[in-house]
This record gives sequence, structure tokens and C-alpha cells, in this order.
Amino acid sequence: MGASHPEPNPTNFTGQDALFIEDFAVLCTFGATEDGGVDRQAGTPADGQQRAWFSQLLRQNDFHVEFDHVGNQFGLKEFVPGAPYVVVGSHLDSQPTAGRYDGAYGVLAAAHAAFRLVEEVEQGLRSPRYNLAVVNWFNEEGSRFQPSMMGSSVYTGKLPLEKALETTDAAGITVRDALETIGCLGTGQGPEAAFAAEIHIEQGRGMERAGVTIGVVDSNWAANKYGFRVHGEQAHTGSTLIEDRKDALLGASMLVVAARQIADAHPGVVHTSVGQLKVYPNSPVVVPSQVELLLDLRSADEEVLAQADAELHAHLAKIEKAANVRIEKFFSHCWPVTPYQIEGVELAEKSAADLGLSNSRVKTLAGHDSTNMKDIVPTVMLFVPSVEGISHNTREFTRDEDLIAGVSMLTETVGRLLEGALAEDKPVL
Amino acid sequence: MGASHPEPNPTNFTGQDALFIEDFAVLCTFGATEDGGVDRQAGTPADGQQRAWFSQLLRQNDFHVEFDHVGNQFGLKEFVPGAPYVVVGSHLDSQPTAGRYDGAYGVLAAAHAAFRLVEEVEQGLRSPRYNLAVVNWFNEEGSRFQPSMMGSSVYTGKLPLEKALETTDAAGITVRDALETIGCLGTGQGPEAAFAAEIHIEQGRGMERAGVTIGVVDSNWAANKYGFRVHGEQAHTGSTLIEDRKDALLGASMLVVAARQIADAHPGVVHTSVGQLKVYPNSPVVVPSQVELLLDLRSADEEVLAQADAELHAHLAKIEKAANVRIEKFFSHCWPVTPYQIEGVELAEKSAADLGLSNSRVKTLAGHDSTNMKDIVPTVMLFVPSVEGISHNTREFTRDEDLIAGVSMLTETVGRLLEGALAEDKPVL
Repeated sequence: MGASHPEPNPTNFTGQDALFIEDFAVLCTFGATEDGGVDRQAGTPADGQQRAWFSQLLRQNDFHVEFDHVGNQFGLKEFVPGAPYVVVGSHLDSQPTAGRYDGAYGVLAAAHAAFRLVEEVEQGLRSPRYNLAVVNWFNEEGSRFQPSMMGSSVYTGKLPLEKALETTDAAGITVRDALETIGCLGTGQGPEAAFAAEIHIEQGRGMERAGVTIGVVDSNWAANKYGFRVHGEQAHTGSTLIEDRKDALLGASMLVVAARQIADAHPGVVHTSVGQLKVYPNSPVVVPSQVELLLDLRSADEEVLAQADAELHAHLAKIEKAANVRIEKFFSHCWPVTPYQIEGVELAEKSAADLGLSNSRVKTLAGHDSTNMKDIVPTVMLFVPSVEGISHNTREFTRDEDLIAGVSMLTETVGRLLEGALAEDKPVL
Repeated sequence: MGASHPEPNPTNFTGQDALFIEDFAVLCTFGATEDGGVDRQAGTPADGQQRAWFSQLLRQNDFHVEFDHVGNQFGLKEFVPGAPYVVVGSHLDSQPTAGRYDGAYGVLAAAHAAFRLVEEVEQGLRSPRYNLAVVNWFNEEGSRFQPSMMGSSVYTGKLPLEKALETTDAAGITVRDALETIGCLGTGQGPEAAFAAEIHIEQGRGMERAGVTIGVVDSNWAANKYGFRVHGEQAHTGSTLIEDRKDALLGASMLVVAARQIADAHPGVVHTSVGQLKVYPNSPVVVPSQVELLLDLRSADEEVLAQADAELHAHLAKIEKAANVRIEKFFSHCWPVTPYQIEGVELAEKSAADLGLSNSRVKTLAGHDSTNMKDIVPTVMLFVPSVEGISHNTREFTRDEDLIAGVSMLTETVGRLLEGALAEDKPVL
């Protein structure tokens, strides 16, 4: 099956816009899948290839390339010696079979916005008060190495460096070894941030339905992510009496079904899912003795999430009894609803209005590296529409014209941050 | 954790019985797990080791060793040139983490019964009308290569040889390559069978509860085994609206729960289970696009099984709608209730009575190689008790004295078959 959407086509554009689409078409080739998606999990050879290409692109545009101690890739441009940086970017890594846009668009858009801003500075059109850093955060997806948003979590001090580097994938390979293998393990903590910005595809249908080109993210949904281990007992699927069984897969399946029941009980306001489930020994005629699964609950309303969480925990006790199993919680990672700084939201809205781009405030249901960055510096998060809201799927698609509008929007927003629009002692604009 | 049951102890026995327990203790070392079980899936190095040792044991006792074209291992003793064989044995392969007794006991019991019978023949105590073949059937378990009972299915003409040899495991290795690697791929179809016998642990609690030493199997439960592929669509677990999701894992989980509901609706007479479930792409924040699972339904009553099967198929349609998925049946393997030949059952009952062993007729819920053999020749299937009925589990256990009683029982039964007790023109006994 070929791609169901048109390929990026630079001939529909001119100048800097055509260059962006050209570069994006090249970026789509790394880890390309037959059906028009990509497979470039963090620290894999495909990730190494795209990082090498991205370093080259940055250097060709006179940016200094640096990897920090957890593999975050920075392109640095110093305007004001010693000043902190406006850090703009996203992530190039992907889920196992993913779309081309998730993360990758935001990294390339950041680079092109930065290239344009350097030109504007050189032409005397902008007077920077900060320096400029393009970033490709390491392992945002968390598919190969958990947790997700690893690079930005270490950068923002939420995850200890050593813990991140010692994390192993399913084959026992550490983050440290994976980064060394692709030549992306640097030293140091990266540039000091003053502000941050990120642009990303929406991964939902809201903006497409509303006909809006730019989403200005004002907060993230709260999320509770859990790892559960269901303990049963191995037995013969044919001969063992039903009453004697301790079927770990039955317990796990009841948990998957319960998670959906919780979402259905809070229509539109709670999202739940199980994305990963591992069965042991996973043999045809053996009642499974152990199942591990990762379950997440999300809501824009913390009280509703607390209610959903209580329902989940009530289900656990019932399932333990019904399936004759024991359920252990081996992992939890929870984050609250947190707003993006209102001054950043307003700055973005003004920028969009000045550019004549339709826009509205939106919330992000997914986590992003900017979710981390906003906890340490004022951060602007922008969305462009996703056709049909398809996400984490090779059929993910955003139209070229929306990509282009997003680059203009990001350029303008980051340009204003660079000039000190949100500085404490900011000049009257 | 150490073994929770006593080790085989030859010092409690004398003569041939002590020799049997000694050999069994050696057999337990191949692919031994730390907790007293074994891990020796078909065609693995551990399977190769035990097969090499078993060949040696057979040759030391003057049996001719031969592998057929699908890796079945035969130990042949010719008494009557050109006559067909009484084929007695079971399987040495195991589930990934399994008990020591399942299959392995039956193969070693067959060998020792055969050694004893050769001695009896040499001493003039038996007058054989047939030849004698000990067999270790290839891949009864079906954990690495599906379907199960592969070697006896090819031998009995139910499975084409080429189809079996081209079957691949999860790593893409074929049966042919696996058998060549362990040096067990022979030529030819093995010896011609006149009669067959197998002894096995019960894998249930019935005999232990009834205090019976020997079970004479009079029929097998009917079974419908299905492979289902649930098709959904990959999406982001956080951002995708619940109503837009096509969650293959939700559909699969509903199927696992439905299977148990069917068993609960027919208490004691229907067994259902899902032993294997594979999720794709199985990544933390991705709604799974595809899940494959193997589901089995079993009953001693074909009408009840047909009713349960209809319930399952009704569930499929409901689940497709409820989870917004499509369910494809990619595999089915069904067998009816079939009796073991009544003359074999009666012969076994007489043998047990003459030996003073308590016995009763039982049914087998699990499939066995004898389930295949009985469809081509009169076949006797015997059970010894399983402590607590624990099966496909490293804690599987049968007491040494029951093992010994079973070897005596098998020797007597096979001795009578060898002398023509079930021959068409049988002499008056």
C-alpha cells in the first residue's frame, strides 16, 4: 500500500518556503516505511542517520552543533555573548510505525525559523537580546526507552541523568550505549534557556473541524500513567479446571475493558488506553502466569481525573477477585493540568493576528517536551492541524500549506521572544 | 526458589525400578530451570541434547535408532522380520517453562517398558507377534512451532510433511532448519504401526482425588482451537477521541473476557482459554492496530461444545461493534470427541487388575500424540496421577511410586499388544 496522502511538494512554493518543503521531503526518507510513514525509534540507526543529516544542515547554516550528556542535539547561534538562549525545537524520534510529522515537523520548523531569524538579524530587521538554540530533544516518544520525554526531563532536572542513561530497552541495551553507538552522547547540560517554543501537529480533529490554522496551547491535560503487573499461575489451557485457574491474561483483559468503561462513563472528558501489554509465557496452550501492561488515564479536569483514578483502583480489587490474580503497580508517572504562561499565549495570539493567520486557544492531550520546558521558563506551544486527527499512525498527515504557515508563525513568535517581548524589563513594543 | 517437591530418588527402589528413577533424574537435567522445571522447546539446543542422550540410552540397550523425515525419534527392536510395530512413546519437548513429567515421563517409561519386554522375550516369557518401536514424537507442545502434535500428525497423514517442515518460529527459523541444526532430520516415514500405546501424567486432579493409580483413557474431549486477528487502527492513546478509536487490544481483551464467560455459563463442562496474545505495535502511548490471539474451547460433550462455539461467534459480532474493530479468523483446528478403541480400554483394565493396580476410566482434556495414533491403529492411552493437577507449570509433580507403577502397567499392556492380544486373529488368552 502506498501513501494515502500527497507527498511534500516544494514546486508549489517559492523561496524559503520551497526550501523548507525540500528539506522536509529529505527528512521523511530517514527510517521511511513502505506505506508513507517512518520508523525511527530513539537511538536506533535511523535516528542516528537523521541526526547526522540534521547536524549537517545546522552547520551549513553556520550554527554550532552540540550534544548534551543525554543526547539532546542543539544548534547554537550566539548573538549576545554570555546571554541565555531562546530554545526552540521538538523531537526527531518516532514510534515504531509512525507518521512523518510528529516531532520531526517541529524540529525542522525550528531550524528554518532560526535560519530566517539569523537573516533578519543580519539585515538589521531584528535586535536580539538573547541567543538562539534549535533543539532536537532525545527520546520524546518513550517507545524504546521509558519514560517518554526523556531528554527534556533530564534537561529540566526532572529525571536524574544516571537513571536516564542506565535505562534499558527490551534487548537490554542502555540509553548510554545506544547514544554512543550513534555518536550522539555529548557532555554538559546544553545551553541555558531563557524562553522556549515548540510547534507540533495537533494530533486531534479540533482545529481541522474549526478551520483554524494555528493552535495556541494554553494548558495540557492531566495524565496518570501506570504500569501494572498481573500475577497468575501457569497451567494447561485444556486440562486445568476453570475454578483452579489463576489466569493473568484474563485479569489483564478485564483491566483493559475496565479502562474503556471508565472513559465511557466520562464521555469526552476522560481518555483511557492500554498501549502495551506483554504476556508470559505466551504459549498456545498455557494459561499465562504474568502479564505486564501500561495504562493511561487523561483529563483536562483534575477532579474528573481523580474520580476516574478512584474508579480504576476500585476495578483493580474487583478484578483480583474475579480472575483470581494479584495486581501489582510497578510504575506510575502522573502530571497535573498546568497552564502555559499566559504572556506567551498572548504573544502568540498577537503574532498570529499580525500575520493574518486564523488561530484559537487549544489544550494538548498528549505530552510534549514543551510540557517540561514550561515548568522552568516561559514557553510558547503552537499547533498546526492534523488531517482527521490521525496520530501515531503512518497515515498521519498535515497539508504543506499548514506546515508553511506554521514555520512563519514560529519565526515571528521566536523573533519576538529573541527581541525580549517577554523579558522582565521588556521595552514597550 | 527451589523445587517445591522432592527430587526423583532411586535409593527408595531396587532393580529395574531404581534404574528407571535414575534415568528419569538424568532426563530432568536437560534444559533444567532453577525452580525445578524444564525449558526444552522443540528443536532447541536443549531438545537436541536430550535427544542425543536418548539415542545413546536406546543404543546401549541394543535398539536401532532412526529419525524420520519430520524428526520423530524411534528406537526399533525387530523380533519378527517384516512384521509391523507396536509403537509406544510420547514426547520429550516441553513448553517454555514447564514441568519435568509432561511427555518426558511417557517417553522414558516407553523405553524402560521396551527394555523389560526384550528381556522377557529373551527369557522366553513373551512370544512377540510384532516388532517394538519406542518413539519420541517431535513437537507435541506446539509452543515454538504451530500446530501442536506436529510429529504424530505428519506420521498419521493428517499434516503434509512439507507444510510441517516449512513452519517457522517467531524468529523465522523453519522446522527443517531447527531439526538439521540439532542433527535430527532423518528420511523416510518411520516404522509401520500395528498398535500404539502412550502413558502420560493426568494433568488434572480427578485421579488424585479418587485415589486411583492408573487412568485408562476412553475418549478425548472435543476441542475447537481458533486463531483470531483483531484489526484496529494505530492512534495516539492520549489525543485520539475515544469515539474515533479502533482499539485492537480492547477488542482482543473483550474476546478473552467473553471466552471465560462462556466457560462460566457451562460450569465444569466447557473449558476455554487464551494462551497466546500478540500486540502490534505494542508501544506505550499507541492504540494497538492489531492483536493476534489463540483461543480454545473444549468439552467432553460435542453438543455442548457446539453451543459454546455458537456463543463465541455471537460474541465476535458484538465485540466488532463495541470496540469498532474487525475480527478475522486466521486459524482453526477442531477435533471431535473420539473414543479410544474399546478393546484397548478393556485390555488395559485387565492388565491393571492382574497387576493389582487401582484403575478407572478417564477422559483426556488435553490433546496427545495418541489422539492422532488412535485414528490409524488401535491405541491404548494410560494416565498416572498429577499432584494437585498442576500442569504446564514448573511445579508439576507426580510421585516416584506412581511413575514406577505406570512403567509396570505400560510394560504389561505393551507386552500383551506385542503378543497379539488385539490381533484380528488373536489366540484365546
